[in-house]
Amino acid sequence: MASAIQPDLDLAASLFEALSQATRRGRGIVRDSYGEGEQAAHDRVRAAAEAAGLEVAVDPIGNLSMTLPGGNRALPKVIVGSHLDSVPQGGNFDGAAGVVAGVCVLAALSRARFVPQFDLTVMAIRAEESAWFDIAYLGSAGAFGLLDPECLSIRRSDNGRTLEATLAERGFDAQAIRERRRLLDPAHIRAYLELHIEQGPTLVARGLPAAVVSGIRGCKRFRNAACRGEYAHSGAVDRPYRHDAVAATVALLHHLEQVWLQEERAGADLVLTSGELYTDPVLHGPSKIAGKTQFVLDLRSLSDATLAAVAQEARAAAARIGAEYRVQFELGATSDSPAAVMDPRLRAKLMGLLAHPFEMPSGAGHDAAVFTKVGIPSAMIFVRNENGSHNAEEAMSMDDFAVGVRALMGLLTEFPL
Amino acid sequence: MASAIQPDLDLAASLFEALSQATRRGRGIVRDSYGEGEQAAHDRVRAAAEAAGLEVAVDPIGNLSMTLPGGNRALPKVIVGSHLDSVPQGGNFDGAAGVVAGVCVLAALSRARFVPQFDLTVMAIRAEESAWFDIAYLGSAGAFGLLDPECLSIRRSDNGRTLEATLAERGFDAQAIRERRRLLDPAHIRAYLELHIEQGPTLVARGLPAAVVSGIRGCKRFRNAACRGEYAHSGAVDRPYRHDAVAATVALLHHLEQVWLQEERAGADLVLTSGELYTDPVLHGPSKIAGKTQFVLDLRSLSDATLAAVAQEARAAAARIGAEYRVQFELGATSDSPAAVMDPRLRAKLMGLLAHPFEMPSGAGHDAAVFTKVGIPSAMIFVRNENGSHNAEEAMSMDDFAVGVRALMGLLTEFPL
Repeated sequence: MASAIQPDLDLAASLFEALSQATRRGRGIVRDSYGEGEQAAHDRVRAAAEAAGLEVAVDPIGNLSMTLPGGNRALPKVIVGSHLDSVPQGGNFDGAAGVVAGVCVLAALSRARFVPQFDLTVMAIRAEESAWFDIAYLGSAGAFGLLDPECLSIRRSDNGRTLEATLAERGFDAQAIRERRRLLDPAHIRAYLELHIEQGPTLVARGLPAAVVSGIRGCKRFRNAACRGEYAHSGAVDRPYRHDAVAATVALLHHLEQVWLQEERAGADLVLTSGELYTDPVLHGPSKIAGKTQFVLDLRSLSDATLAAVAQEARAAAARIGAEYRVQFELGATSDSPAAVMDPRLRAKLMGLLAHPFEMPSGAGHDAAVFTKVGIPSAMIFVRNENGSHNAEEAMSMDDFAVGVRALMGLLTEFPL
Repeated sequence: MASAIQPDLDLAASLFEALSQATRRGRGIVRDSYGEGEQAAHDRVRAAAEAAGLEVAVDPIGNLSMTLPGGNRALPKVIVGSHLDSVPQGGNFDGAAGVVAGVCVLAALSRARFVPQFDLTVMAIRAEESAWFDIAYLGSAGAFGLLDPECLSIRRSDNGRTLEATLAERGFDAQAIRERRRLLDPAHIRAYLELHIEQGPTLVARGLPAAVVSGIRGCKRFRNAACRGEYAHSGAVDRPYRHDAVAATVALLHHLEQVWLQEERAGADLVLTSGELYTDPVLHGPSKIAGKTQFVLDLRSLSDATLAAVAQEARAAAARIGAEYRVQFELGATSDSPAAVMDPRLRAKLMGLLAHPFEMPSGAGHDAAVFTKVGIPSAMIFVRNENGSHNAEEAMSMDDFAVGVRALMGLLTEFPL
């Protein structure tokens, strides 16, 4: 019977439109973690879930659960989740697609009076992006009591307010994080499923609407790296006397690109990015040698060993090149997300639900990595998306979305496997 | 008789202190070209000159002349000049030292009722630094009618106001620039002398208080270079699909450092600096591949041919590396200042006035280059200075300053040579 029910794609389309209208700021989307943008998205999704007759609950740190009650509520449930926050000037689909997918499936099942054996819950997870608080997975890690309470003092990258103050402003409870309180019990979760747009060009290049994710690349990030040299006149200081922070930073980044090429040749999985790099806008000048740079160094790999080795080489090279250029590198601590392998049984089931089955790794991190970490069998569906993500030009077609949502619905209605 | 007169170093010390108090903003000095900071410096120097009994005049574009009248006022005069503007967060001596030197010499001569054969004029020149209007030597080039009137539409780098509007705000006459009016006649100038702090470490390294300048390095500057790629998720896009503006810019700057090393090995004079380099603070992010960089590329050499060759190689490399990294470099036009050789006869005279004669090139540009360009015999004295210039840590001792000022005074009182 459930197989005849179709996901409510009209509801999905109207939700995407409502999210775009509520959170577009100029060209891009701004759904700031625990900020006004994310809250606006939560408000709209919650209203749609209530209208569809789902049970709605918000946990102490703001994660929103929307549940279609099962016949036996004591049984472990299935969670369909993703996040509603975005990077600054991001796109409308990164994160939101997974939440909207879950809502449009449960809304259809609810309308058809389908009663699953156990609860099916869509979870709109808070603060997955690290762009605002320099820590990924705040909402999901917080739900499992995994956050170091120190994170409460992290300041938002734009307005400088601490996470603790920001939670208080929204009426949430920092005490849950301080006590490492477990808001979700892994033993009561049968599986975690997440639909997400692909954030790279693979499905576009291969002409496929959707894929099953094999695993999630881990990330090791030097978030606040800096190079300190000395400001001086650009024309009047010859090479041996320079302390040029730009020249040294260029030398370090060039060296790390050579390391990347070596790793590639050795067959390792790795991507390496410096997406922020800047001299000081107050102190730099066209006729000055730069006395300082700040930069981010972001390493990703399916292998935690590769991440550790490349990070170690980055520190060694920074010391060596710093001495050579008479400057001081301060790479700082890394923020780390380990790699996560998706559940083989769920992956196989999802592959069977795709007309053109295709499996690929996820280069970006997702909340599914946290659910995997606490032992919950997890799976992810990627939907084809033009122009990558974390930018205003994300573009997912509703036809491709429908392919992913149908696979999700198929899996949900086939439980227990 | 003149040889017994000593420069008024107490006046010099009090002027430096007054300039520092009037124009220090936080740690550094801000004497913005044609702005409040430069004007404050002009006001204080003018008051000191008037108190010393010098004739004071301001030309239509704000250059300030302070003259000790000669016995025959029809004869060509000697100008002692330098500028009173500074880079943002610069030091107290770059430029001002030369003006203060001239004032403390003429004040002493005036008090001693010394009457030179011809006028001796100290000129406080406007807007020598290119940091504010992206063009060097505005005041001196403007005085000789050498400015392209197009420069009136250049916008100040910080507040975006055009040079034309800025001149009007100060009550100066943009029409003089529009008409290329000659405010100074080279035929009526016997010589131009400029004292300036050394902006590099050479005199400190050699333990010398002062030097004679052999020539001024020319400059070719890509002021508004940019690299355009595509923003994308840092973890999800593998190397062959990236359009990474930072990676491409690093590759270009690394290549140009190799070019510099080659030129050095071939014996060429060259320095090469990128003192401003930045991703877009609104659009970049720690988990994004950067879609854009902006940077400055500043080339300096005593050889105009070397400058032309390296600039050509920069353009060729930008095209080659841009294609390799699937990005677009836009290096833009260069702003150029040709190299200038100082007058051999004046240099020889100055060498004879130093206890430890030493000659060296100037890596930085100076107004003396403009006076040289219009055929006026010019000479420069460098004074030892710690920590380079164009920064708040400039440090010139009054003892070293006195060595340079006495050489200047010696030369002035020996005219006609």
